[in-house]
Amino acid sequence: MIIIGEKINSTLKSVRPSIENYDTAAIQKLAKRQAAAGASYIDLNAGMFYEDEPERLEWLVKTVQEVVDLPLSLDSPNPKAIEAGLKVNTNGKPIINSITDEKERFDEVLPLVVEYNTAVIALCMDDTGMPETAEDRVAIARRLIKKLSEAGVAHEDIYIDPLIRPIGTGSHYGKVALGTMRIVKEEYPDVHVTCGLSNISFGIPARKLMNQTFLVAATANGMDGAILNPLDKKLMTFLYAAEALMGHDDFCMEYLTAFREGKLEGYLPK
Amino acid sequence: MIIIGEKINSTLKSVRPSIENYDTAAIQKLAKRQAAAGASYIDLNAGMFYEDEPERLEWLVKTVQEVVDLPLSLDSPNPKAIEAGLKVNTNGKPIINSITDEKERFDEVLPLVVEYNTAVIALCMDDTGMPETAEDRVAIARRLIKKLSEAGVAHEDIYIDPLIRPIGTGSHYGKVALGTMRIVKEEYPDVHVTCGLSNISFGIPARKLMNQTFLVAATANGMDGAILNPLDKKLMTFLYAAEALMGHDDFCMEYLTAFREGKLEGYLPK
Repeated sequence: MIIIGEKINSTLKSVRPSIENYDTAAIQKLAKRQAAAGASYIDLNAGMFYEDEPERLEWLVKTVQEVVDLPLSLDSPNPKAIEAGLKVNTNGKPIINSITDEKERFDEVLPLVVEYNTAVIALCMDDTGMPETAEDRVAIARRLIKKLSEAGVAHEDIYIDPLIRPIGTGSHYGKVALGTMRIVKEEYPDVHVTCGLSNISFGIPARKLMNQTFLVAATANGMDGAILNPLDKKLMTFLYAAEALMGHDDFCMEYLTAFREGKLEGYLPK
Repeated sequence: MIIIGEKINSTLKSVRPSIENYDTAAIQKLAKRQAAAGASYIDLNAGMFYEDEPERLEWLVKTVQEVVDLPLSLDSPNPKAIEAGLKVNTNGKPIINSITDEKERFDEVLPLVVEYNTAVIALCMDDTGMPETAEDRVAIARRLIKKLSEAGVAHEDIYIDPLIRPIGTGSHYGKVALGTMRIVKEEYPDVHVTCGLSNISFGIPARKLMNQTFLVAATANGMDGAILNPLDKKLMTFLYAAEALMGHDDFCMEYLTAFREGKLEGYLPK
């Protein structure tokens, strides 16, 4: 599983002040902790600072790459902010989070993907919005993959995100998300499938339970990238189990090691 | 989810003495507790008593149906034991657990399914054993469904069990089980898909974690019947979440009710 560590995000109340106050130590600590917990990418989001998002994102990139070598995920709908981050990036191939099939956004973000040779998260929405059915989301995914491929982006650099809507607002949204994931992964085995997990549980109680459940179900339906909080030990415990269950962990070695090291929360070795 | 409560089973060390000693009160208590916890069927297994299994199973049927109205699952490879139970059954349409595509067993069990008009769990194995791939298990499932249908058994009365092998003995067995479930459910939407969950985790640590993970993954791949312990509150907690996630729980009503009633373990309402 490719883990995109989501903690350095200006929409999180606990993190926003660190970005607001240019708190280098706090941001670097969050980056290092996520790296140590198993993140493959560090996501950086300064989107709550409308007026100077490009400068803030640039600062986040510089600040984080002083202390971790992981590639970065530049999380913004604003091409100017993304480019400000790309210009100072030195940590290998970053991922742009995200492009959509909305005409204006696609046309603005694609040149950045090409010029800076990045990976990209592609959301299943277009100018008509977010479709209600898995089939309609898959249709957008196919279009996005075709257009990105034609621009020279390799399948391995594309991360399709079906877009998760809360099951509390529609009982079918879990199945829509999982169905989209499965079909995309079957049709394009080299394309990655990702999503932000936690939206699934918005508005219902026991959110962590539902997020754990969704992580397992998505892993069992082809998701191989996940935007999540790697500092959530219980969630990571279920990730170890899901990866072993799906045969992504030869001889269950990582699962067994995690157990021995006490990383499977609630299941300490004797 | 159709829950087949697995607790009255002579292979369980804690239960075996109750069957050995004809302990009516203990057996009836286990039946009532499973019914209260949400079981749809009560499984009855006296298979550890080779010499008088038919008499023991007959006694279990009589004993349990004195206190619960749920249909029973007669769990034995021995047609004589199954028939002894069927003869005294009065609790509606029972399920025979199980038939296989092994010639002798199929030919002995099928007449009981037909004569007593029962449902039946059909295991994906034949005289060559348990196949290694999902495709080969599906091939057996197709044969079993065809032969049962030709004998007049309705699809709704057939429960295909892919047979679960431990992932500790082969990293691919989770995917084999889940793949078999998904294909069978897609091809035969009215046929039920079931399994005994706990075999998946045999031989590895943190078994409950893996069983919870497998329950979620299987539910997300079409399983609509599960042979499990309904008295395991944590497992039932994940079942509520998986059913809501898959849209089997309109407006998440059962999930929300379970939360309010304190049934989601670890997530008590304030």
